[in-house]
Amino acid sequence: MNTGDIAHLMDTDGVTALGDYSAVVPVSPIAVVSPRNHADCVAIVQWANREGVSLVCRAGGTGTTGGALPITANTVVVTMRHMNRVIAMDESAATITVEPGVILAHIHDYVEGVGLFYPPDPASLAICTIGGNVMENAGGPRALKYGVTRNYVLGLKGVWGSGESFAYGGQCRKNVAGYDMIGLLTGSEGTLGIITEITLALRPKPRVIREMIVGYASSDDAVAALRNGMQQGVMPSTAEFMVDDCVAASLAYLGVSALFERHPAYVIWQVDGFTEADVEAQLARIVASSNYAGCMPMDTPERSEHVWSIRRSVSLGFTKMAGKKYSEDIVVPVSQLSATMLALADLAHESGIRVVGYGHLGDGNIHVNILKMGASDADWDRYAPDVVTSVMALAMRYGGSLSGEHGIGVTKKPYMGMQFTSNDLRVFAGIKSVVDPQGIMNPHKAIYDNDYKLR
Amino acid sequence: MNTGDIAHLMDTDGVTALGDYSAVVPVSPIAVVSPRNHADCVAIVQWANREGVSLVCRAGGTGTTGGALPITANTVVVTMRHMNRVIAMDESAATITVEPGVILAHIHDYVEGVGLFYPPDPASLAICTIGGNVMENAGGPRALKYGVTRNYVLGLKGVWGSGESFAYGGQCRKNVAGYDMIGLLTGSEGTLGIITEITLALRPKPRVIREMIVGYASSDDAVAALRNGMQQGVMPSTAEFMVDDCVAASLAYLGVSALFERHPAYVIWQVDGFTEADVEAQLARIVASSNYAGCMPMDTPERSEHVWSIRRSVSLGFTKMAGKKYSEDIVVPVSQLSATMLALADLAHESGIRVVGYGHLGDGNIHVNILKMGASDADWDRYAPDVVTSVMALAMRYGGSLSGEHGIGVTKKPYMGMQFTSNDLRVFAGIKSVVDPQGIMNPHKAIYDNDYKLR
Repeated sequence: MNTGDIAHLMDTDGVTALGDYSAVVPVSPIAVVSPRNHADCVAIVQWANREGVSLVCRAGGTGTTGGALPITANTVVVTMRHMNRVIAMDESAATITVEPGVILAHIHDYVEGVGLFYPPDPASLAICTIGGNVMENAGGPRALKYGVTRNYVLGLKGVWGSGESFAYGGQCRKNVAGYDMIGLLTGSEGTLGIITEITLALRPKPRVIREMIVGYASSDDAVAALRNGMQQGVMPSTAEFMVDDCVAASLAYLGVSALFERHPAYVIWQVDGFTEADVEAQLARIVASSNYAGCMPMDTPERSEHVWSIRRSVSLGFTKMAGKKYSEDIVVPVSQLSATMLALADLAHESGIRVVGYGHLGDGNIHVNILKMGASDADWDRYAPDVVTSVMALAMRYGGSLSGEHGIGVTKKPYMGMQFTSNDLRVFAGIKSVVDPQGIMNPHKAIYDNDYKLR
Repeated sequence: MNTGDIAHLMDTDGVTALGDYSAVVPVSPIAVVSPRNHADCVAIVQWANREGVSLVCRAGGTGTTGGALPITANTVVVTMRHMNRVIAMDESAATITVEPGVILAHIHDYVEGVGLFYPPDPASLAICTIGGNVMENAGGPRALKYGVTRNYVLGLKGVWGSGESFAYGGQCRKNVAGYDMIGLLTGSEGTLGIITEITLALRPKPRVIREMIVGYASSDDAVAALRNGMQQGVMPSTAEFMVDDCVAASLAYLGVSALFERHPAYVIWQVDGFTEADVEAQLARIVASSNYAGCMPMDTPERSEHVWSIRRSVSLGFTKMAGKKYSEDIVVPVSQLSATMLALADLAHESGIRVVGYGHLGDGNIHVNILKMGASDADWDRYAPDVVTSVMALAMRYGGSLSGEHGIGVTKKPYMGMQFTSNDLRVFAGIKSVVDPQGIMNPHKAIYDNDYKLR
């Protein structure tokens, strides 16, 4: 390999582990490069086009679908670990401009220091980067009130797979000139180009936050609370949904007892706003707006940490309980959430495999855990993939989508033909060809898969 | 022309006037067709491809940049006047699904009847349609708090210019599978295909709204109020900005006197929310957060209507005062708003032409009026186009965009090369080719113009 004019960007220390949070086994890259700036990224992409090498960008490495892993031969990994500067904050415009390698939590802290707020809050916020957030269009619990990453990206600079630079948008909060290239890039999972600079819109930081965990006899009652509350003017910032199996698994993992009464289902309600009385009135209204079985205000640091530690430990709890599991993040219309939860439970397999869901009530985003439980290793290997396929088919049946926030990456490619027509997949491939004619950017990810039979 | 299988869709009554709110002179179409449903639209597009005919969609006809007008020979106008049904509302999912010809105000009334809320509110809301809103990515005063049309479009069905049908998204509030085709279509100004069904996300209807008009000694003080207020936790729903010239022109047009003290600049602040005390506290906080010269609460129907009638009449007032005018809708970062306002005034031409701006403070979207005033007819025709070009150049200088909400259409095509590189324009054209290979959808609009010298 002739590294030519990018020889000085070769990264021989620091990046040895190239995994992520998926079960995908990466192929060893032929090299790792660490650009320092936009010009370096342009040089890398132009070099890759000349040499016929594929590029895979990575930053935090917290992906759950293998999107940032090299999976083909002759691939160079581009790590963003040196592009981690805050470039500028503009308090009057309420914007911040950053490089893609900045850790999300750092952005949160930075802007909250001056009373501003960047809402997206994926669970990995302490270690994931804003570049990865943009590439996956990351969400998080606060998406219910505040929307996802796409709603906050005002400007993107970078380089297309073709080697041409781009700079779309900037600090303007409205912009309808030309096609929406920022929307196209956000959520494109690294398949179109490399992002080198990101400008984000900020909002006022909420002055007051109040939380409560409420138990329900059924998920129907939880959905009714959200519907009735919203129709009475309440906009919760967060509505995290768990069934009691989730709580049981978490408690066992944590080795603690619940401080709240146990019920079949729960919602962790959070309301934020300007004045205490207003926020408390909203929280009281949404709780009172449907039948509930019990509730515990999360009004002390101990109670709040207790509940959130249970919510955070659900996935680890299931792993410990089940031995092995797959995690998916389908999304369905909120009105189909109860039916979907029941149908998921029905996917339990005679081999012992069980299926349980939890997640973001307000946007119907269900984290589906497929649990090995009593199944033998042989049965798990044999039947689990079919159960995953059934989960995806179920999302389709209820008018849903394969992914709410984790992306398609490698692991969900086989199901793309369930959600999209063959023409849709041709359109995706055609758009990629316009900006990445040699197909060097993150090949065989996200947008299509020839192995799956198209409808 | 062989109308073949779309003969029954020919519309010979009802559509005689095909203008809009721009000064563009349309070319007479060879026919007008009125589809009733998705299948009709597919038939029309497939017929147009076979016959080599161009298609221009129109609905409300309220565009200001000529985007929905036929401008080339051999064009058929597709009117959405019969596709105006509300298909479904889902209160649990908080979504509404409509055909593109539904009037925006009808959607507002429909969803507010059950306590829900569709925020985008362009000035033409009583007569514009949701299909046009999606095609232009319409905004409005409430965009400051609530965002623009794109933030609410969850699902789109339609037909690409190729004749292939599509159905992206649906009722899900998150969705990251595949490229963001909904984002690409929203704001595409009818250049990619025909939309036949739209699903919108809804929010809780605010229970309380409070408004106040505040006078400032300068636009700097107004910008400071927004910045300081947001950093103290206030999120206004609306912040409409006017200089005193706007108020003077409106008052003269309306033939009334101001109920409020006159000052160099004004902001109409609006805050909405759940409880009266909270909303009033937010409004008081943002007013107190910077130097202000005077204020009048809009606390009676008379006062509110007085102020809003002045705001609504600014454009008509300038037309009456100036004789002729051009209206543009540039957008700049909020931090550049004061400098932009000063620079706009400096564009006044020795011939007598004057330039004045007003608009949406919170998102830097300035409605720039270029006024004939003392200029002779000959000087107006000779110099006004150069002044418009200078306005666009000024937007670029301050990091802005050619359009915040009106789109590019026909009238702003000549300036696209100021904001985009030649490669950007090739990418736009390439993307259009993927879904509209024969280029039949709204040709020569919105995305590129070969006449303008590219940077």
